[in-house]
Amino acid sequence: MILDLKEIYADTKAYLNKEVTVQGWIRNHRKQKEFGFIDFSDGTTFTHLQIVYDNKLANFDEITKLHIGSAISVTGILIPSPKEGQELEMQCKELTLEGDCDEDYPIQPKRHTREFLRDNAYLRPRTNLFNATFRVRSVAAYAIHKYFQERGYVYFHAPLITASDCEGAGEMFQVTTLDLDRIAKSGEVDYSKDFFGKQTSLTVSGQLEAETWALAYKKTYTFGPTFRAENSNTKTHANEFWMIEPEIAFCDLDQDMDIMEDMLKYVVKYVLDNCPLEIDFFDAFVEKGLKEKLTKLISSKFTRIDHEEVIKILKEADVKWEFPPEYGEDIAKEHEKYITEYFNGPVFIKNWPKDIKAFYMKQNADGKTVAAVDLEVPGAGELMGGSQREEDYDKLVSRMHELGMNTDELDWYLNLRRYGGCVHSGFGMGFERLLIYLTGVENIRDVIPYYRTPNNCDY
Amino acid sequence: MILDLKEIYADTKAYLNKEVTVQGWIRNHRKQKEFGFIDFSDGTTFTHLQIVYDNKLANFDEITKLHIGSAISVTGILIPSPKEGQELEMQCKELTLEGDCDEDYPIQPKRHTREFLRDNAYLRPRTNLFNATFRVRSVAAYAIHKYFQERGYVYFHAPLITASDCEGAGEMFQVTTLDLDRIAKSGEVDYSKDFFGKQTSLTVSGQLEAETWALAYKKTYTFGPTFRAENSNTKTHANEFWMIEPEIAFCDLDQDMDIMEDMLKYVVKYVLDNCPLEIDFFDAFVEKGLKEKLTKLISSKFTRIDHEEVIKILKEADVKWEFPPEYGEDIAKEHEKYITEYFNGPVFIKNWPKDIKAFYMKQNADGKTVAAVDLEVPGAGELMGGSQREEDYDKLVSRMHELGMNTDELDWYLNLRRYGGCVHSGFGMGFERLLIYLTGVENIRDVIPYYRTPNNCDY
Repeated sequence: MILDLKEIYADTKAYLNKEVTVQGWIRNHRKQKEFGFIDFSDGTTFTHLQIVYDNKLANFDEITKLHIGSAISVTGILIPSPKEGQELEMQCKELTLEGDCDEDYPIQPKRHTREFLRDNAYLRPRTNLFNATFRVRSVAAYAIHKYFQERGYVYFHAPLITASDCEGAGEMFQVTTLDLDRIAKSGEVDYSKDFFGKQTSLTVSGQLEAETWALAYKKTYTFGPTFRAENSNTKTHANEFWMIEPEIAFCDLDQDMDIMEDMLKYVVKYVLDNCPLEIDFFDAFVEKGLKEKLTKLISSKFTRIDHEEVIKILKEADVKWEFPPEYGEDIAKEHEKYITEYFNGPVFIKNWPKDIKAFYMKQNADGKTVAAVDLEVPGAGELMGGSQREEDYDKLVSRMHELGMNTDELDWYLNLRRYGGCVHSGFGMGFERLLIYLTGVENIRDVIPYYRTPNNCDY
Repeated sequence: MILDLKEIYADTKAYLNKEVTVQGWIRNHRKQKEFGFIDFSDGTTFTHLQIVYDNKLANFDEITKLHIGSAISVTGILIPSPKEGQELEMQCKELTLEGDCDEDYPIQPKRHTREFLRDNAYLRPRTNLFNATFRVRSVAAYAIHKYFQERGYVYFHAPLITASDCEGAGEMFQVTTLDLDRIAKSGEVDYSKDFFGKQTSLTVSGQLEAETWALAYKKTYTFGPTFRAENSNTKTHANEFWMIEPEIAFCDLDQDMDIMEDMLKYVVKYVLDNCPLEIDFFDAFVEKGLKEKLTKLISSKFTRIDHEEVIKILKEADVKWEFPPEYGEDIAKEHEKYITEYFNGPVFIKNWPKDIKAFYMKQNADGKTVAAVDLEVPGAGELMGGSQREEDYDKLVSRMHELGMNTDELDWYLNLRRYGGCVHSGFGMGFERLLIYLTGVENIRDVIPYYRTPNNCDY
């Protein structure tokens, strides 16, 4: 019976004293004269399995020579382990080498720097840290689908190549099949000859298109890649990342916040329930207090407060700010931190000054603010941003004109307001930002399998 | 109590004779002197709700004037319907207009051509056909995640922007931030100044990268967009589409076929179970016999046969072929059709001539074939393709040299064979191809929300 370690550890009692076969890799190997110990993992779960073999095996000598990193099949009996902290070990009856590992293998049983592992990104999921990180990535992605699907949301695949640039002016990647060398030679750019007959780019958001789905299905969400050609080299910027953008009809800003809060709690709980070993590992070695932070979030009451009130609190605070808070302006990282500590929990900051927010947001009656919201969480700052969308055709058009936008290009978007448009809202969550929050792994390069940043495009 | 139609129809008995509120859109409207009927849908389920109102309502006159397409909130009692084929209707107590619909609304309660609806793609999910199609798209996507996640596969997000072009030579979209006008002026292309410091494109497959995950997690799958700059205008080609690419370590071609068969049956069954009304609709109006085709697939035994045997059967067939079948060559659509009819069910064609297959496929001992497989299904032809991957470093390198490929660029991929590489296999399924099979909607433009084809890039 060939089993994954995941299956064995899910029901150790059932497999105790049973003969099973496992297939995976040697993570470490200690040999003595008459027996040896293999630290074995098949990657299906965080926990390894110790395999004990002795010189009664016909190929004992060969086994003692096996390299770290090699792929093996092992048949043996699962027995109670004498070693503290591990329930089982395997008494080996038969071991076959499935794939050798050369001695220049970069992943050795010692501490590697994250920089070194980034340079060997294709091997890093074989380390405990990255094995845990990318499993959490997978489980969290599933939790998001599960949350929305079980609540009747329709999953919408937003287009990636787009001819619209209304949200990403100047920070978009161009997509083309024009021959650049030929352009250099001819001295001419003719977009009518480009693949789509016009200039196209990679999308920065699927929201506007998602609104078309919300007004047909009532509830929809995207979960897909988005791109930004931003020349930033910070810990939180990548040029290709995944976003979740739910959009809901007959939903105002308050209901939008209800959904944001409920979804976040669901996903955090799902990851705590389904990746307990990974979370314990992160808690011990990456971010002390992570588990408590996540557990606390689930039972927190999220505060809801106007932007204006927040500025008032910040101004009254006995703090020497690097960036003095100001009415009508954005808030800085130091302010985000202060405000979540002030309320001792997550905070929805709502009703933002319209001049620092996007054109499609619902204009409030005060003429100064829009029905936008950012969610600030302790230890991570802004995790999501949402808004009620302007459903009034005339107001939307005049706002676009104010901002010098081309309304022709977005006629379909405007038409949504003429054809049974209604109060509707949505939000966006950067998936990698969520993962940084969930794992404590603080560099975005370490939560994306193969990250793209300025001058980095390997694999 | 505000409810989705989906909730009401999930438990009609619970809501019978209860007062509830629904929010959605007017699909049709018939009015008489003293009462009127609104065909109402909120998009959350395929079934509409008939709303009956009469002149006892204070705003009766206004209601009679409501346009098709308008967004409304309605509170009323759910009562048994006298109309055949509908269980419930709503006796309206209160109706509020949430968003008017202008009279030039393109979606009227009549038959629109698919071409017309493609031109109004942002409104087409409001029609029965497209509402059903894109709901099936969402449900099928979830079924795929569910299948793999419940079996311990790790979801892998393959990078979209790539500097590698080993699989897509000549048919890739270039991604750049170089200023094309400046190139035209300067007469020079300098990729060292491009965003990533080199020439980059959109990926055509995440498989090679997925192999790195398989050799760490044992079981992995991708589900993401892929791109091909193919200048084809057929019913089955789009330039941006979604692919599923599972990859499994310690898995040979036979086990690979087991997984392909099991996954397909699971997804088909999940859609039959969760979209029964949609499937009935497609069966009645799109593809007669669809439901039987899908139901039959679930209990079919998939045939497994060598490519060479298939050619033999085709050659012996009493058919005048447009493209005569030949040993060592690919098979045509007419052959695919014949062979699934011959075996009266799905057929795995395996062990293909190596010269017509990709470099990474496992070379068989005969020196002529590779351990590749295509799945042919009745009525749709090729639905998936897979292979065992060549795990032998030397054989892989020499095959790449034979094909004139640059091995430096894929050193990481080759290294997988030196660092605990093992027998491993995988397959790819075009998501849209699956949807065409599931819905009977035969044009790929009609199963992608916003399709990209040559000279088409709207929204």
